Amino acid sequence: MSEEITISLQDAESLSLAVLQHNGYSQAHAEAITCNVLAVQRDECHSHGLYRLIGCVQTALNGGVDPRAEPTITDQAASVVRVNANRGCSLLSFERGKPHLIEKAKRSGIAALAINNSFHFSALWPEVEALSAQGLVALAMTPSHAFVAPAGGTSPLLGTNPIAFSWPRPGNTPYTFDFATSVVARGEIELHRRAGKTIPEGWAIDSDGNTTTDPVAALAGAMLPFGNYKGSALSTMVELLAGPMIGDLLGHETQAANAEKTGKPFHGELIIAISPEAFLGKDTEGHLKHAETLFEEIVGQGARLPSQRRFEARERSRANGITFPKALYDELRALAAQA
Amino acid sequence: MSEEITISLQDAESLSLAVLQHNGYSQAHAEAITCNVLAVQRDECHSHGLYRLIGCVQTALNGGVDPRAEPTITDQAASVVRVNANRGCSLLSFERGKPHLIEKAKRSGIAALAINNSFHFSALWPEVEALSAQGLVALAMTPSHAFVAPAGGTSPLLGTNPIAFSWPRPGNTPYTFDFATSVVARGEIELHRRAGKTIPEGWAIDSDGNTTTDPVAALAGAMLPFGNYKGSALSTMVELLAGPMIGDLLGHETQAANAEKTGKPFHGELIIAISPEAFLGKDTEGHLKHAETLFEEIVGQGARLPSQRRFEARERSRANGITFPKALYDELRALAAQA
Repeated sequence: MSEEITISLQDAESLSLAVLQHNGYSQAHAEAITCNVLAVQRDECHSHGLYRLIGCVQTALNGGVDPRAEPTITDQAASVVRVNANRGCSLLSFERGKPHLIEKAKRSGIAALAINNSFHFSALWPEVEALSAQGLVALAMTPSHAFVAPAGGTSPLLGTNPIAFSWPRPGNTPYTFDFATSVVARGEIELHRRAGKTIPEGWAIDSDGNTTTDPVAALAGAMLPFGNYKGSALSTMVELLAGPMIGDLLGHETQAANAEKTGKPFHGELIIAISPEAFLGKDTEGHLKHAETLFEEIVGQGARLPSQRRFEARERSRANGITFPKALYDELRALAAQA
Repeated sequence: MSEEITISLQDAESLSLAVLQHNGYSQAHAEAITCNVLAVQRDECHSHGLYRLIGCVQTALNGGVDPRAEPTITDQAASVVRVNANRGCSLLSFERGKPHLIEKAKRSGIAALAINNSFHFSALWPEVEALSAQGLVALAMTPSHAFVAPAGGTSPLLGTNPIAFSWPRPGNTPYTFDFATSVVARGEIELHRRAGKTIPEGWAIDSDGNTTTDPVAALAGAMLPFGNYKGSALSTMVELLAGPMIGDLLGHETQAANAEKTGKPFHGELIIAISPEAFLGKDTEGHLKHAETLFEEIVGQGARLPSQRRFEARERSRANGITFPKALYDELRALAAQA
């Protein structure tokens, strides 16, 4: 077991800002990235937390992201705002587009934010939760990392294509989910390989397109979409909506970037926000309360709501600070000291 | 093997209109229902085709639908139109709301149609395909028939909650999917029961919440969502978006209606339409062509696009008419003759 360290959220924030700013990121980008990875680390999603700062630094060094890019905002239509990340990280584009998205959704009832031409590395749930915190229902998706074969196919084509959703629960944590449309995260297969364990059937196929339980063959082959042809269809939908529909790339076009570790080519993200109040007016409160009966029934029969472990971790982190590997802390401190 | 009959699409249309109008449906409702079931029958989706006319007649006789209800349209917000079905069938409400949805989506970029207080029996794909035929991207969902336990749960709570999506492919059939968020349709389990076969593990649980391969125990227990907790989360999203968000019921509140066979209580449906042109302007054609590369890659590696069998059936039906059981034909003729 590796040594761990516990630091306050404030110290983690300062460390993250220092790492990013000492490695070429503008203050605006450093703040947007820090806001995201800190929220994620606070919720103990280690794979998308402070650890990702190393990738941000490396990608900037490799020229895979412009760390000082200023996003360009276009008021595209009454219910559409587009933000061109101009080869910068998607997170600042989200921050810049967010007030416009909120305003449009509240006025029109439903609105979309399209982010184009962005470097994307982050979990989507902080974005949909930023919107549900404003009383909106939010849905986000992005095509990325084409490691997944379509159902019935034989080789990588679709991205892991996450979908995230958040529903406001006044006075409570929101109903949020955020998951890849692959059966499991690629990291899961990697963990099995390291441990010398076989993987369950149905996770992946080998490079000949045959089902495999060998993690090495799986990593050389393709992951499978969750839920067979249904998950495959949803994954394809994500590619279309957050790709061509917003004038951006398909998941498999970002593939070369992974090999070169540059993060290029840049791709898109789509966020849809809906205002229950625009639909329901003065009846909004009553119908949101009505939704609570569904959550009560789910929990009442022993099932879990998604994200509950995350919300429990959030409470812990707020009370006690965040705990993570000392080796990562040392690495980040070293990156922060480099000028 | 039961005896079959082949009739022209025109004759099927006349038969359907006669069945509905001779059994209390207004001309407007008869036309909207006929348009839907005929499209479905033409595509050889027998479970949602002409067979459903019997249910429409029975439900009207049982007072479970008002066969002459006039929908009420509310221009709710710049990007939202609501249609109160007033206890009538959802299909006329869709027809009445559709021009407003199209106009709003084309003007604002994204728009929503909420149908409330409706009797709903139909496949969703004819509705999303009616929108993709107008160059829009469409997504539809409805909560219904609470036969499904949430992942980790023990008893029926969630509806089978279908999601349908259609993407326009100029000069080609659209990319369309329409599936329940349960692992399989309830009818599949019923078919296994009739054939005296066991069902695969993972389809359902018994009334104690334990996994079962016995179709009888499964029908008395609960079906499972596809893709485990991910499908369960999506199914919950459908309940929320097409339920409380539009001021309507949750899936499990429609459950009693199935027991009483009245079709009541009435529930909601949400349709979202997006205009690629509003996002992309003069670049629309190029990006739609770009989307075609994804479809080519999917087909190129031996996978199928969803709905392809349906589109092949459509060609057959247009050329040769529709073929279906003679017993159903006789039953419909008898219903059409009753005054």
